[in-house]
Amino acid sequence: MVSKSQIKLITSLEQKKHRTKMGLFVVEGKKGIEEVLESNFELHSLFTSQDIFNASPEQTHLISEVELNKISRLKTAQIGLALFKIPISSKIEIEGITIALDGIRDPGNLGTIIRLCDWFGVETLLCSLDTVDCYNSKVVQASMGSITRVNINYIDLAFFLKENNSHLKVGTFLEGQDLYSSEFPKDAILILGNEANGISHDIEILVEKKINIPQFSNANNTESLNVATATAILLSEFRRKENY
Amino acid sequence: MVSKSQIKLITSLEQKKHRTKMGLFVVEGKKGIEEVLESNFELHSLFTSQDIFNASPEQTHLISEVELNKISRLKTAQIGLALFKIPISSKIEIEGITIALDGIRDPGNLGTIIRLCDWFGVETLLCSLDTVDCYNSKVVQASMGSITRVNINYIDLAFFLKENNSHLKVGTFLEGQDLYSSEFPKDAILILGNEANGISHDIEILVEKKINIPQFSNANNTESLNVATATAILLSEFRRKENY
Repeated sequence: MVSKSQIKLITSLEQKKHRTKMGLFVVEGKKGIEEVLESNFELHSLFTSQDIFNASPEQTHLISEVELNKISRLKTAQIGLALFKIPISSKIEIEGITIALDGIRDPGNLGTIIRLCDWFGVETLLCSLDTVDCYNSKVVQASMGSITRVNINYIDLAFFLKENNSHLKVGTFLEGQDLYSSEFPKDAILILGNEANGISHDIEILVEKKINIPQFSNANNTESLNVATATAILLSEFRRKENY
Repeated sequence: MVSKSQIKLITSLEQKKHRTKMGLFVVEGKKGIEEVLESNFELHSLFTSQDIFNASPEQTHLISEVELNKISRLKTAQIGLALFKIPISSKIEIEGITIALDGIRDPGNLGTIIRLCDWFGVETLLCSLDTVDCYNSKVVQASMGSITRVNINYIDLAFFLKENNSHLKVGTFLEGQDLYSSEFPKDAILILGNEANGISHDIEILVEKKINIPQFSNANNTESLNVATATAILLSEFRRKENY
């Protein structure tokens, strides 16, 4: 059974301030829960209609599908809903290619970018304080478990970039140098900007190298690339240059 | 004013069978409508709360915001909703790199892929008959006007690939050859498969070159890349090889 106070807790976690206060976030669905259980993230409690998870009996609450649907945020609840503890971030140490996000607002984009960091072996993801919270359930869902394998840090991005001396700060701009013919050092921070406005002025003045993904069509009115697809292209080209 | 029969028509276009029967699709929002008006797509009718569009007075229906909200499918209606005629597809002639989609189901993915084709100068997009309809309003929204600049054809994909002799059929598979060290001819059909199941068996047996986007992390359990980000990486690398 799910108690009233448990329902209240789970519902409250839809809001970032409650997630921060309680230090908890929600993961839904068999695959997602299994992936986070296998990671070093710590389980708080698990609500499931099927006793199939590798979790301690003390933390597992067997509930009916009706109850599960009541606490789920998905259209159709999927076997389980788990609360995990938000890991306490350690000192930020960056090495190699690092991604920095300046005001990303769309949860799907952030989730996709986390998944790309995981794929391309980017260990640290830096997020400006106005970037969407990575423990937002839509981000967790879109990241497909990658959230447990990438160190995500919310920081004063301008301050961090100013203090950092080890990495070249690279940003994408229309007037930037052609990506494919650019050279990059092993240590670089690749900065990606907000969906509508791009990189903010405060960050732009800290960018040391401006690059551009060339357009290959004749149409002049094509919208700029979506930030997640731009990240995919940049990471692919960075890793290719490093390894081939 | 919007008449009852107009509301009925607009609502009916949420379903593919009605779009096909009427030969019409819906575009919402200022930017989207302007882009399609500038293309060679033909306007059927425009409903707007602000008389700011370059459309004939006969086709323009000035309505209140309350009425606009009634016919809109967006959470908040955006200035206008237009019906355009679905273009009649001409004979399929492919040249250079062509993308073929085998059972893509997510409207956001299809919209993003159309936008990528536009960016990377891919003129023709082939879709299997079970791929989501490109005139679905979510696809139109995600494609950001690119839908007017890419020839999109729904076809019996296996039949088409069997008949085609001019292009190398390339598909992505885990066991494929490393993308970055592969060579490709100028004329290639790049096949991308369904989000959950990848390329179907009927199409796989027609693939002439299997390639793979290498993973750069140590984690073995990273989910495969999302199909839209995979398309971005592939098109970027194809164009780089061609032009640099």
